[in-house]
Amino acid sequence: MIRYVYDFTDGGQAMANLLGGKGAHLAEMTRMGLPVPPGFTITTQACRSLLSTGHEPEQLTDELAEHLAALEESMGRHLGDPNDPLLLSVRSGAQRSMPGMMETILDVGLNDTTVRGLAEVSGNADFAWDSYRRLLQMYGATVLGVDLNLFATVLAAHPDPHELPLVVEQFKEIIRSTAGEEFPQDPAGQLRRAVRAVFHSWNGERAKVYRRREHIAEDLGTAVTVQVMVYGNLGPDSGTGVAFTHDPATGHEGIYGDYLPNAQGEDVVSGTRNAIPLKQLERIDSPSFHQLQDCLLSLTKHYRDLCDTEFTIERGKLWMLQTRIGKRTAEAAFRIAAHFVDEDVITPDEVLGRVTGEQLGQLMFPRFDTAHAESPLAVGIPASPGAAVGAAVFDSHEAVSRAGLGEDVVLVRRETSPDDLPGMIAARAVLTGRGGKTSHAAVVARGMGRVCVCGTETLNIDPSARAFTTADGTRVTEGTVISVDGTTGAVHLGALPLVESDVMRYFEYGEETTALSAAVAHALERADHARRLGVRANADTPEDAARARRFGASGIGLCRTEHMFLGERRHLIETMILAGTEADRRQALDDLLPLQRDDFTDILAAMDGLPVTIRLLDPPLHEFLPDRTELTERIAARRATGTTPDPHDVRLLAAVTRLDEHNPMLGLRGVRLGLVTPGLYAMQARAVGEAVAQRRRDGGEPHAEIMIPLVATTRELSRAREEVTAVLTEVSTATGIDVHCPIGTMIELPRAALTAGPIARHADFFSLGTNDLTQTTWGLSRDDAEASFLPAYLAQGICDVSPFETLDLDGVGRLVAIALEEGRAAHPGLSVGVCGEHGGDPESIRFFDTAGLDYVSCSPYRVPIARLEAGRARYFQR
Amino acid sequence: MIRYVYDFTDGGQAMANLLGGKGAHLAEMTRMGLPVPPGFTITTQACRSLLSTGHEPEQLTDELAEHLAALEESMGRHLGDPNDPLLLSVRSGAQRSMPGMMETILDVGLNDTTVRGLAEVSGNADFAWDSYRRLLQMYGATVLGVDLNLFATVLAAHPDPHELPLVVEQFKEIIRSTAGEEFPQDPAGQLRRAVRAVFHSWNGERAKVYRRREHIAEDLGTAVTVQVMVYGNLGPDSGTGVAFTHDPATGHEGIYGDYLPNAQGEDVVSGTRNAIPLKQLERIDSPSFHQLQDCLLSLTKHYRDLCDTEFTIERGKLWMLQTRIGKRTAEAAFRIAAHFVDEDVITPDEVLGRVTGEQLGQLMFPRFDTAHAESPLAVGIPASPGAAVGAAVFDSHEAVSRAGLGEDVVLVRRETSPDDLPGMIAARAVLTGRGGKTSHAAVVARGMGRVCVCGTETLNIDPSARAFTTADGTRVTEGTVISVDGTTGAVHLGALPLVESDVMRYFEYGEETTALSAAVAHALERADHARRLGVRANADTPEDAARARRFGASGIGLCRTEHMFLGERRHLIETMILAGTEADRRQALDDLLPLQRDDFTDILAAMDGLPVTIRLLDPPLHEFLPDRTELTERIAARRATGTTPDPHDVRLLAAVTRLDEHNPMLGLRGVRLGLVTPGLYAMQARAVGEAVAQRRRDGGEPHAEIMIPLVATTRELSRAREEVTAVLTEVSTATGIDVHCPIGTMIELPRAALTAGPIARHADFFSLGTNDLTQTTWGLSRDDAEASFLPAYLAQGICDVSPFETLDLDGVGRLVAIALEEGRAAHPGLSVGVCGEHGGDPESIRFFDTAGLDYVSCSPYRVPIARLEAGRARYFQR
Repeated sequence: MIRYVYDFTDGGQAMANLLGGKGAHLAEMTRMGLPVPPGFTITTQACRSLLSTGHEPEQLTDELAEHLAALEESMGRHLGDPNDPLLLSVRSGAQRSMPGMMETILDVGLNDTTVRGLAEVSGNADFAWDSYRRLLQMYGATVLGVDLNLFATVLAAHPDPHELPLVVEQFKEIIRSTAGEEFPQDPAGQLRRAVRAVFHSWNGERAKVYRRREHIAEDLGTAVTVQVMVYGNLGPDSGTGVAFTHDPATGHEGIYGDYLPNAQGEDVVSGTRNAIPLKQLERIDSPSFHQLQDCLLSLTKHYRDLCDTEFTIERGKLWMLQTRIGKRTAEAAFRIAAHFVDEDVITPDEVLGRVTGEQLGQLMFPRFDTAHAESPLAVGIPASPGAAVGAAVFDSHEAVSRAGLGEDVVLVRRETSPDDLPGMIAARAVLTGRGGKTSHAAVVARGMGRVCVCGTETLNIDPSARAFTTADGTRVTEGTVISVDGTTGAVHLGALPLVESDVMRYFEYGEETTALSAAVAHALERADHARRLGVRANADTPEDAARARRFGASGIGLCRTEHMFLGERRHLIETMILAGTEADRRQALDDLLPLQRDDFTDILAAMDGLPVTIRLLDPPLHEFLPDRTELTERIAARRATGTTPDPHDVRLLAAVTRLDEHNPMLGLRGVRLGLVTPGLYAMQARAVGEAVAQRRRDGGEPHAEIMIPLVATTRELSRAREEVTAVLTEVSTATGIDVHCPIGTMIELPRAALTAGPIARHADFFSLGTNDLTQTTWGLSRDDAEASFLPAYLAQGICDVSPFETLDLDGVGRLVAIALEEGRAAHPGLSVGVCGEHGGDPESIRFFDTAGLDYVSCSPYRVPIARLEAGRARYFQR
Repeated sequence: MIRYVYDFTDGGQAMANLLGGKGAHLAEMTRMGLPVPPGFTITTQACRSLLSTGHEPEQLTDELAEHLAALEESMGRHLGDPNDPLLLSVRSGAQRSMPGMMETILDVGLNDTTVRGLAEVSGNADFAWDSYRRLLQMYGATVLGVDLNLFATVLAAHPDPHELPLVVEQFKEIIRSTAGEEFPQDPAGQLRRAVRAVFHSWNGERAKVYRRREHIAEDLGTAVTVQVMVYGNLGPDSGTGVAFTHDPATGHEGIYGDYLPNAQGEDVVSGTRNAIPLKQLERIDSPSFHQLQDCLLSLTKHYRDLCDTEFTIERGKLWMLQTRIGKRTAEAAFRIAAHFVDEDVITPDEVLGRVTGEQLGQLMFPRFDTAHAESPLAVGIPASPGAAVGAAVFDSHEAVSRAGLGEDVVLVRRETSPDDLPGMIAARAVLTGRGGKTSHAAVVARGMGRVCVCGTETLNIDPSARAFTTADGTRVTEGTVISVDGTTGAVHLGALPLVESDVMRYFEYGEETTALSAAVAHALERADHARRLGVRANADTPEDAARARRFGASGIGLCRTEHMFLGERRHLIETMILAGTEADRRQALDDLLPLQRDDFTDILAAMDGLPVTIRLLDPPLHEFLPDRTELTERIAARRATGTTPDPHDVRLLAAVTRLDEHNPMLGLRGVRLGLVTPGLYAMQARAVGEAVAQRRRDGGEPHAEIMIPLVATTRELSRAREEVTAVLTEVSTATGIDVHCPIGTMIELPRAALTAGPIARHADFFSLGTNDLTQTTWGLSRDDAEASFLPAYLAQGICDVSPFETLDLDGVGRLVAIALEEGRAAHPGLSVGVCGEHGGDPESIRFFDTAGLDYVSCSPYRVPIARLEAGRARYFQR
């Protein structure tokens, strides 16, 4: 038998899906014996029925009447009683809190008659007429769709409380003329229509936008609580407030909150009047304060968490109107959780249910104290978190030279290229005008832990003038100090004060200097204990490898080799590309070999005993050559002035033009480059093999793995594998040391996922490259999308979240599942990891854990976050 | 009980999978009573067993001995008999013919003793010694891997037949010194090892390349036929030849072929000696000629098709050595099929098994207009029809590399060998100096539909000088453009103008002017009757629409609207993009509306009564602006000379830079452009709606369908659909004519296929965009791939065929199947078509038919091909 209405004495906190959070917790508090105004809740099921059929379930009318009668009886007062009317609040309350997103109607039961009765029993006519005016306003707007501004204008014109009866008349007239109907004098009718209107507010615009942002399903519906009104606006012995069991900013225990004497609850929440600190209530009304303190203590004990409550004091009598598990800052989350463990309130493992990777991420980077900051110069895409201050510089060379003199600098570029690497290393932060979260600047900065804001399109960056101009015309020249916030994307003029992260100090130096870092350490220890997923790092240098290890990585899941071809070695690649003869090309490769070998040797040393997955060269060759537009400009300018262009420029432009692709992301890269560039992969495989041999000779325990990128077909992999294996065999023979190692492939194209079975027969492991896989599955270049339509899509709700941040389960996730299932079916025990950006994303990690991956790999700085989330994924699976 | 050896009297044509084509047809001819030298066939199963285990099945030795004994008994001669030795041929023969790709060993049974016996019984010592030297050569190369050049050098040094015993001694010495073993004198041992070597030749390089190109499975294996040797080189009353039951070029009935007196079969096939027309045999040996004529007649009746035979006349006695269903030109295929129907040899529907879409395509190719051509450089043998223009290249490598850069090339060779296969694939035409219609070059080119002229003996081809010289001394060097006419054999300097075919004239004007076009018309009539798939055309203009209709299209599957924004209208799009104000932008759209409406009205008129699927704007906006490099050069040049750049150029460059994308294929296009460009899709929908209203008012029967491109998510489609529907409703209200029409979507991204179920709920139809779907599934931009690595991939056998030509069943096909299945499950009866290039590809059409698509849509010129292949798909399904 379906039941649509539950009295507060019937329900409990476990019924939030049916009663909504508010209804469930009101019932819970009622059963705990806390002072809750009586009432009942109409279920979300009734809402769903109404929204899908267009009318309330028939049975609801009877149930509602029954519960109303019981309420009237228990209160000894009746709805519509002209002398002492029962008045009701009608509030929304969904399973997950959607604060302020749906509607509320208070004072239901007032009409032209009962308002006088209320005036009589309250002894406060102004209060009674003010309540009636509130009802008309809320009912008018919510039930009848009247524009709230019409009411506000009238109210503002009649500020004197004695004019309230006149205001009420005018409000009724507004309703009559705009809604075309009279405000109903029948209290039962008011209630019925109020309930229906609150149900319908589930589908209001604000609610929809909020749900999209918060990923709340559209078809859950809201519950409605109907509760006896209590009043905080009956005089100085009344009031209303919000109380927390702990400080939501720091996590300290105690009573925190705000109190507003002689006011209704909505006045606190809406912030239209200034509240006083809750502690001052002790001075005003000590008994109520201590009773509230007891209530909060009971709630803490009962809920074993920070509770966030609303209460009203009506003429010295405390009423609890709401409680819920309270939101808190990252710091508070860790400290409260640790504190509860110390107090034996929760088990050590329960910490994993109380803190998130996102919160940990917030604690790892320095922050700006923006309390006194002026508005920012611009806001771009926050691409690598943290806060940095430095002098703006406009090229890599300037960055290096100023940093060499001890100056902090921010490298400002339209967009960065591999040429900017030295400058990025030297700078505190990188600021670009173009590109999204996977642009060169963003990826490199994140990997190095540099602050980065990219895609700041309102800035007009002019490197030749060594200055940028903001949207409002402010010009910032080289050397001017700016502050860059990689967490928010804001760029400020001048130096904002910095707050350093003690959590980062803990990771870097292992000192648990503060209660906070101890709390973080404890949470990570539990996560490591709980998790099934391995956590590796994406690291390309010995320094990054060492850091990743300090941060708890169990290996390198992605060691990119392209960064090893930059800087001073660049000319070797240039030579290889421009090589006139086969001999020149071979020579360039031969020159690269020892350099690559040393790179690998050092990285294998830093990760001694742990796996290091080395990806062979992936990006298109033209990335190693200068920018085409710059070359074109230089040559055109020379020709126009009758000067012969530099022949090297001309050769370079010819090469760039030859290698130029319409869509380099879909062009000659990865294994394609390896298969059509004789000797390239062989040289890299030889460097790996020789590095392994070297490490063995030095007594080390190297675990190299070689990974072939961008495979679409089985034959590409088998050919590349043959070539690599042959080289490793040669090196083994030459050195007398067996340097063979696992050879695997990236699964980063839909076709690779769709043919994972046959491919797995040639692979020792899979690594899911979910960045590229997302790009091709969606047909979406991340840089281009983030610079053009993706922001609009997010704003318009066409996408809830960027598929580059959180794995798209329906599309990309389905391919991941196919690759796993069919890969393992063809090759039992196949190791499968992920090395895209999603490897550090909490929601995606839960999916990877459930799907059965072996490990995730992410940037060193996200390793702790991934460890925590991998532990949480298991914790919530139990 | 497995059986590995079948006597010719035991098998038959139906056993080709076990006996190979050669063995099965030899058995068939034996059973027909035709004169076939006795012998037996060792099965493909034995080959598979050998190749997988590394040794012959044990039982094979016994069976071989048994069948050999039976053969000796029936012949009354014995292997190794010093007086009158039995000699055997050992030939490969796979299920599908692989001409010249595997090995053959003749004269098995000769040794130092039996050679003298053969000399004796043949009365021809030169012949006997020549046979022995051939055995040593073939055995040495095939069984022992000796370089054939070593033998060739010795042979060239001793041209006199009397020196043959000396040559034999030197050949034996070559074998001894390079293979490290003696040539075996034991005939049974020779036979055993010859059989094994021929089996192993299945895995030779040439055979592998050929199988990849022809899509023959790697694991089928070859059969081996062992047959009593007969000799065409015993004197002037002997000879060997190739005979066809019909002219393979024209289809005319009669005896066609080549005859080479006093020669072995290999001399004909390799084209090393020039044969005489077969008809001259009547003069040389009338009885044999007439007996051959009778044999051919029997074969035609029996096989009900064109047969291609090899025969030998040994001292006036005719022996049939091979028959198979002969390859033929496209013209011959249609004419022979029509002729057989007329003669009641085959049923009208059987025509569908005899002609292919590829052949029809060849007949639609233009020919050269030679009216004003200068006299040809040379005339060779027209070996594969069609007309081709390209730069002369002199080796396979150069052909592949130039074709990879997009150049049309003609491969010019003295004669071709299987090594030239990659170059033949890459070239437009093949031109050789030696060899006839059955030479390697001719057979392979016909199979691939490449133009081929062979035996052009007046040309002096010098590959090392990379040039050829004509009879009158004209020298043509590499890179010079020549025109090759495969229908006439003429080779011209420069590029000749082309004329249409009469089949094309038939399609264009409906006149069955020739027997050929009547044959084509008949085949298409049967195909239309048989086929289930609809065939629509991709057409963007009224002219294309009208042509498509003439060619038999049942509607337009893809009407692209971007072409409508080019030419004179381009400035309107420019205005829209550059528009300073919202009003300017709106004005540009308003100006475009009547133009678009007229476009649609005309196309709907041309396709009156048939569906026209209109795709809303798809490509990125920057495609409508000038080239970035050109603008950059122009502005840089002006700046360098102190001139102010044109302000319009500067604005254009700013817009191009803003719209510039790293990977436009993955950028702001399709529905993305529609959703973020206010008014664009609304304008297009309005133009469609108003065009439909106009056509209705004019008494027409318009069937417009609106298609939303590049959808990745359900919400993109539902938003675009809402916008379009709202506009159509407005137009309906304004005109009083209901202009609502089906609204569907392209499925051209992996994500769309993977989420086809939910998407189908918002779509009235799907159109599979297999071009884009291939690009994203493979992560492969067609333009870039074809310019860089795809040719190398094809040449190296990493890909068998470009996935842009034939649908990749494992990857893209799987997505197609998912989209179909899940789309129809969610939306029963959903119409699904395909509008990529694959819609015109025969192999892909078979897949689309089986998968259950409703229609394919392709370019107007491929409509007849698609009709034929759609009919064939059903015919072969029966």
